[in-house]
Amino acid sequence: MNSSSSASEASRPFLTWQRIIDWAQEHYRYRTFSKDERIPARTGLLYLVQRGAIRLVGTAQVSASNDKSASKLLNQTADETFLGFVGAGQPFEIVAQSPFTLQAYSHIDQTSVVWMYWHDLDNWPHFRREVLDAFRYQHQRKLLWLSTLGQRRTIDRLLGFLTLLIEEFGEPCSNGYCLPFPLTHAQIGSAIGSTRVTVTRLMGKLRQRELICTKGDNLICLPSQAIEILHHSTIVER
Amino acid sequence: MNSSSSASEASRPFLTWQRIIDWAQEHYRYRTFSKDERIPARTGLLYLVQRGAIRLVGTAQVSASNDKSASKLLNQTADETFLGFVGAGQPFEIVAQSPFTLQAYSHIDQTSVVWMYWHDLDNWPHFRREVLDAFRYQHQRKLLWLSTLGQRRTIDRLLGFLTLLIEEFGEPCSNGYCLPFPLTHAQIGSAIGSTRVTVTRLMGKLRQRELICTKGDNLICLPSQAIEILHHSTIVER
Repeated sequence: MNSSSSASEASRPFLTWQRIIDWAQEHYRYRTFSKDERIPARTGLLYLVQRGAIRLVGTAQVSASNDKSASKLLNQTADETFLGFVGAGQPFEIVAQSPFTLQAYSHIDQTSVVWMYWHDLDNWPHFRREVLDAFRYQHQRKLLWLSTLGQRRTIDRLLGFLTLLIEEFGEPCSNGYCLPFPLTHAQIGSAIGSTRVTVTRLMGKLRQRELICTKGDNLICLPSQAIEILHHSTIVER
Repeated sequence: MNSSSSASEASRPFLTWQRIIDWAQEHYRYRTFSKDERIPARTGLLYLVQRGAIRLVGTAQVSASNDKSASKLLNQTADETFLGFVGAGQPFEIVAQSPFTLQAYSHIDQTSVVWMYWHDLDNWPHFRREVLDAFRYQHQRKLLWLSTLGQRRTIDRLLGFLTLLIEEFGEPCSNGYCLPFPLTHAQIGSAIGSTRVTVTRLMGKLRQRELICTKGDNLICLPSQAIEILHHSTIVER
């Protein structure tokens, strides 16, 4: 688990990273956020998570409604979509292309972020390549994410989504891998095109079938045997 | 429209690109495919579209069903999700992470593809950076794509999806921008988590409201006034 990202961690010269933190602190490009605080991120800049985790959220204000009077109401209730986490050591950036907007929130307390212009990386060409490789990896994960969202049954989308998330961010626990921070059912619902209520119901089903379990403070885990079943069924297929 | 990608086209030294094509032909790393032919792409290699367009498709064989006897049937009908196009001058790669698989198809006739190992780019460091920047751009587009998939109403997801696709690949036509190749309603449905039948019905509604139109051989267009409405509603909001 977490193989690709930890491989890239291992190859990253710790020294460069430490130099960048030092540089960022010197130049006031370093800030620590409390839980659920919005990162005042702008397009065109590059952000690096030094510690903690970022939650990316997207808003689409596309409305096919031709009822003009309803547009204000629709805009007010624009759906926020959970787009994933960005963990420590990973880069992120904000894109805005009307009518779509992205926002970044500190997902856990004491999340520290460094920011810079792309040309600031001219001093660290090797590090720039690592940043670009990290975006390439994030892109690959998003393609897998989109693959699972194409599944017709909501419960399959839910299980696929949780599997991808825990594969990437999960930490080993007593009986499998566990997401190290909580995620609300509303947030999960927004990501898989469902509602909080449905997610709660389907999470119950997945728990019953022992495909997921929860730990302590509502942390979601994939039990080892569930991971084996998932992978086995595909291997048999080939 | 198409601003980011055409900007990167403009900055790409034509010479490097031509050298890479020459190199690929010399080394038998160049092949032309007919419409809907599968590209025998493998993980770990880098692919560049020289001409035509590639259709990326994902399959997720995640099943939350605990009925073992049904698993064979479920695997047979694994949903193929349309994950987007890769146009001329753009790179792509295949990721496979059980239980997810990606595949690439030639979307139009006479699509030519070049492939190489990443280390082959050691000869063209500048070009490698362009390839990585292209993946970074593709990642940004996928985040916007995920944002629109989070919208609750299928018709909004449909309009958001078509808008993003036409913004990226559309070509100017008499009354707006037009997708230069056909896309079936089943393919659209797979991308937005809906069915062919629903897409056909909702496309009719969007046409009625003049938010989209179709041209000749079933090509989907965004009329200029629809684009203005979309962007205007967001600008007003800020």
